[in-house]
Amino acid sequence: MRQSHLFSKVRKEAPADEVAENAKLLIRAGFIHKEMAGVYDYLPLGLRVRNNIVAIIRDEMTKLGAVEISLSALQEKELWEKTGRWSDASVDSWFKTELKNGSSLGLGFTHEEPIARLMTNHIQSYKDLPVYAFQIQTKFRNEKRAKSGIMRGREFLMKDLYSFSKDEKEHAVFYERAKEAYKNIFTRIGIGDSTYETFASGGVFAPYSHEFQTVCDAGEDIIYVDEETGIAVNKEVYTDDVLRDLGLDKEKLKEQKSIEVGNIFSLGTRFSEPLGLVYKSEEGKRIPVVMGSYGIGPDRLMGTIVELFSNEEGVVWPDAVAPFDVHLIGINPDNDTAVEEEIESVYTLLQNKKVNILLDDRDIRAGEKFAESDLIGIPKRIVVSAKTCSAGAHEVYYRKTKETQHLSKELL
Amino acid sequence: MRQSHLFSKVRKEAPADEVAENAKLLIRAGFIHKEMAGVYDYLPLGLRVRNNIVAIIRDEMTKLGAVEISLSALQEKELWEKTGRWSDASVDSWFKTELKNGSSLGLGFTHEEPIARLMTNHIQSYKDLPVYAFQIQTKFRNEKRAKSGIMRGREFLMKDLYSFSKDEKEHAVFYERAKEAYKNIFTRIGIGDSTYETFASGGVFAPYSHEFQTVCDAGEDIIYVDEETGIAVNKEVYTDDVLRDLGLDKEKLKEQKSIEVGNIFSLGTRFSEPLGLVYKSEEGKRIPVVMGSYGIGPDRLMGTIVELFSNEEGVVWPDAVAPFDVHLIGINPDNDTAVEEEIESVYTLLQNKKVNILLDDRDIRAGEKFAESDLIGIPKRIVVSAKTCSAGAHEVYYRKTKETQHLSKELL
Repeated sequence: MRQSHLFSKVRKEAPADEVAENAKLLIRAGFIHKEMAGVYDYLPLGLRVRNNIVAIIRDEMTKLGAVEISLSALQEKELWEKTGRWSDASVDSWFKTELKNGSSLGLGFTHEEPIARLMTNHIQSYKDLPVYAFQIQTKFRNEKRAKSGIMRGREFLMKDLYSFSKDEKEHAVFYERAKEAYKNIFTRIGIGDSTYETFASGGVFAPYSHEFQTVCDAGEDIIYVDEETGIAVNKEVYTDDVLRDLGLDKEKLKEQKSIEVGNIFSLGTRFSEPLGLVYKSEEGKRIPVVMGSYGIGPDRLMGTIVELFSNEEGVVWPDAVAPFDVHLIGINPDNDTAVEEEIESVYTLLQNKKVNILLDDRDIRAGEKFAESDLIGIPKRIVVSAKTCSAGAHEVYYRKTKETQHLSKELL
Repeated sequence: MRQSHLFSKVRKEAPADEVAENAKLLIRAGFIHKEMAGVYDYLPLGLRVRNNIVAIIRDEMTKLGAVEISLSALQEKELWEKTGRWSDASVDSWFKTELKNGSSLGLGFTHEEPIARLMTNHIQSYKDLPVYAFQIQTKFRNEKRAKSGIMRGREFLMKDLYSFSKDEKEHAVFYERAKEAYKNIFTRIGIGDSTYETFASGGVFAPYSHEFQTVCDAGEDIIYVDEETGIAVNKEVYTDDVLRDLGLDKEKLKEQKSIEVGNIFSLGTRFSEPLGLVYKSEEGKRIPVVMGSYGIGPDRLMGTIVELFSNEEGVVWPDAVAPFDVHLIGINPDNDTAVEEEIESVYTLLQNKKVNILLDDRDIRAGEKFAESDLIGIPKRIVVSAKTCSAGAHEVYYRKTKETQHLSKELL
């Protein structure tokens, strides 16, 4: 893509009311636009990054054997009353609205209720189980404060996977597989090294839930990490009893600030019982389905990556999620025809090689192009100028390592 | 994909309160689930169809030179007050909600306001124009009645494209190109033959807007069609003056019920003026940007296709949007190993040829498989049974023409 075609511009300053580093940088670099606190639009560069993250998540969900669906944001009061999650006393993050006839509706902050009800039409017999379904869809949460940029939005994209199993045993097997899929996702997007499987509070049906926490100073959580085993414990369950139960040695644990980048829950029959999601067993007994839910937020992952990998010049995108693979900078202040032709030739050459490439074809100063390129953070930069043309080798600069190479066109 | 893996089941009956044929059929066939009137979930089959439609729209938008973005659903009262579109008196389809601090928010039913405001950060000079940006995103409309299934939802997916031009002349050129892109979309998804460019009421800045109307008895609109020119007039502007203006002969026009499948508007400076979206011309003058907006609803297109092409047995999907290309039906009541192997071999063979294939591997009666296959409406059905195996030629059935062929495996 040509940068002249990409309408977004970089900005000197982020909005004065923006406090989160991830949002400040992404707004300045033209990835997102702030509508209001906790609500962001995705501009072309930002949408490309988010789509890359989504594609990796989708791939891992599909490998798990899950099928994709898409549930509505609008939610019926009557449904959520059945599980005791409608009232603001039990859930304090609802956005509520109403139909013209006065019926109350909510905007889904999660989807256990509608998917459990939906499945009563499709799950009747043990032969119909297990079922694994996921969606990548917009959630709404009426956060009192929204100061973490795209890491905690009032409106945000979420991948939520739900599992439906015959019994705890079948559930446990899938739960472990889901954990592995999550680890694959974090590794693939580039945050695997600093992300820990973390024990957190469970609920009625399980002693613990599992979070994935990425160690980062911008995090809102506190975890205690055992580097040796790669296991961590959330502060909320950090007691001597729990440490004993998990076989962890308090002396070895290190306190860290962290970002919750994913969580998985064993739900037992918490939702299937009140909503009548039961199946007939081989023996003809009616048994409630055992459910699990597995959440991960592409926007939060994007924010986490920015918090982890930025430096004073701007964002540094890992290869797998970068909006483009190569940022081609044409420097041709004298409008030299040969240089112009070489820039276009390199652009075409790399496009033909299926390289995702952004060509800065704008008529602005070279220094400005370099500064903006650093801010945007595409992994590899290629500079074509009168100088590199006459040298017969163009400049290649790696955003992450700040290393420079000079390569002939054929080797780019 | 194996049908045993696709959790959705067909149903004998649609919900009693569902009146729209498109929703009745799609619910029975397991494509969608009804949450409430005008609010539907997309199950795996339905999501595949919608994604195919979306991919065609995205492709045509990209060919137009538009870049993709994604704007928020949550909208600020203060922004929409500036253009006079906040009050329920001016717009009667808002869903409204509020933040914890009491601030009013709306759920976007369209996005002219936020995108015009956003563009003030990116459009300053004539050099920055034109800009074309589109999104494929969920809209919310608080319809008083929602009786048209997925053709008029309270929550629905929409592709909205916005154009930003220096003047009316630049705008007009793009407007005509957008019309052609729309025609391409309707042709590619299979409804081109019955879809007419239709003159409708314009607004402050243009004598007419243009709708695309598909002739169909399930439609809510009335249009007058001139078959010769392929032009139609919406009843709302069907006056002698307008016919004279358009050079149409009343005698030749045919009254038809129709579905509005797309609309395009010349907006002039209706939004750019109140929101301060101005640019500096070559002469240094500050000039408001000329805008256009171009809408198309993938859900409505899907519903229109169902209304147009279904028959008594079920849906008939056009090739380009079908959830799968081939429905492979294995018939093997005796669990014959050779037949089983042949079914799997055909499945693998076609998968290797990159054919999108659904294998009905379920242990149910052949008659049931055929009836469900007709209901689901995949264009091509291949039957592998003991009989077709011993004949050395499998049965191929075309859903649309109801023709049958027998072909050896190599020719499938």
